[in-house]
Amino acid sequence: MALEKKYPAGDRGMVIWFTGLSGAGKTALSRSVSLQLTAGGNKVEILDGDEVRESLSRGLGFCREDRDENVRRIGFVARLLARNGVVVLVSAISPYRQSRDDVRRAVERDELPFVEVLIRAPIEVLIERDPKGLYKKALAGEIRNFTGISDPYEEPESPGLVVDSSSESVGESTARLMSFLRRAELDQIERAQDHPEQAIESADRQSMQEGC
Amino acid sequence: MALEKKYPAGDRGMVIWFTGLSGAGKTALSRSVSLQLTAGGNKVEILDGDEVRESLSRGLGFCREDRDENVRRIGFVARLLARNGVVVLVSAISPYRQSRDDVRRAVERDELPFVEVLIRAPIEVLIERDPKGLYKKALAGEIRNFTGISDPYEEPESPGLVVDSSSESVGESTARLMSFLRRAELDQIERAQDHPEQAIESADRQSMQEGC
Repeated sequence: MALEKKYPAGDRGMVIWFTGLSGAGKTALSRSVSLQLTAGGNKVEILDGDEVRESLSRGLGFCREDRDENVRRIGFVARLLARNGVVVLVSAISPYRQSRDDVRRAVERDELPFVEVLIRAPIEVLIERDPKGLYKKALAGEIRNFTGISDPYEEPESPGLVVDSSSESVGESTARLMSFLRRAELDQIERAQDHPEQAIESADRQSMQEGC
Repeated sequence: MALEKKYPAGDRGMVIWFTGLSGAGKTALSRSVSLQLTAGGNKVEILDGDEVRESLSRGLGFCREDRDENVRRIGFVARLLARNGVVVLVSAISPYRQSRDDVRRAVERDELPFVEVLIRAPIEVLIERDPKGLYKKALAGEIRNFTGISDPYEEPESPGLVVDSSSESVGESTARLMSFLRRAELDQIERAQDHPEQAIESADRQSMQEGC
């Protein structure tokens, strides 16, 4: 496999892209997966949509053009990190199929794996959860361009994994994703255990926003 | 040294920030240094100002606020890379001291080295060189906010290295910078030679722009 030649064990980057509506559980799942991957000896960074709005995309809004530009920037940074051996967990609504597919193509051009994970739950469940009170505002017409309410969401046509957070715990989803990576021979846990001296990095970070 | 504990040889990131007027030689020097560092076993990425205008800062202009935002974004990405073991060469006019110092503080908070390199040449020399024809346009008033002509440039107060590209070749400057890194014990060439299996990465990339 070409990748093996370029990326020694424990030093092969990839992009795992979590997409789905607000409140579906992207952030929780990416954090949980991050802990597993870090424990397995991988370098991991989380690029979280809300945080990236502040660090890379201040001034961008939520019309399609700005959302696509935001996804493009996240993709650019994810590629830079992944080609340097980092497992990048992107957690972003990223509602448009085209822009996600553009990132996938760019990552794969670098001969790096791109794994798309769709996280969903019935809209009634999301409206019921509503941890940030955003659905309430969107339904009251106080937020425009709100994905799933007043803005479209395009599901991936063939995601690597589909998670329904209304019927599965974060722990269960994490285990399924780790198992998926293992089956796809994308995990580095076994190999990393043979190299305990490898650098272990972790993740942290900031907050968000503005309008088209 | 704290850094040694966290970053194994050949896997310690840092940021080398080339600042100076347009045409001073930032891009040429960063490319030359990149070759040396890559040959020494380092992972290297170049974040070039012109290219970053397209990949991270599309829509930003050249007023102070936008220039500072551009530098902030470059700094954010440089930190992400550096803390994952990449030597990041930033080549950007970055005319304002405050914004460069903000990045330095953020990088140093991560316990990573930040080396500022000032590249300069007499303004008459730059006007004479003018490879992109930009000085001509700026002097004719066709470009506003042009650093060094119609916009300020604030030199670093204590740069790690000062390069005068009118009196020194790119090769000489490269040798001086490598020697500086060695003296500061920031180079990893000797150590990297003990670890030939380390991943070697390189750099490539895009183009620019818009207005305040």
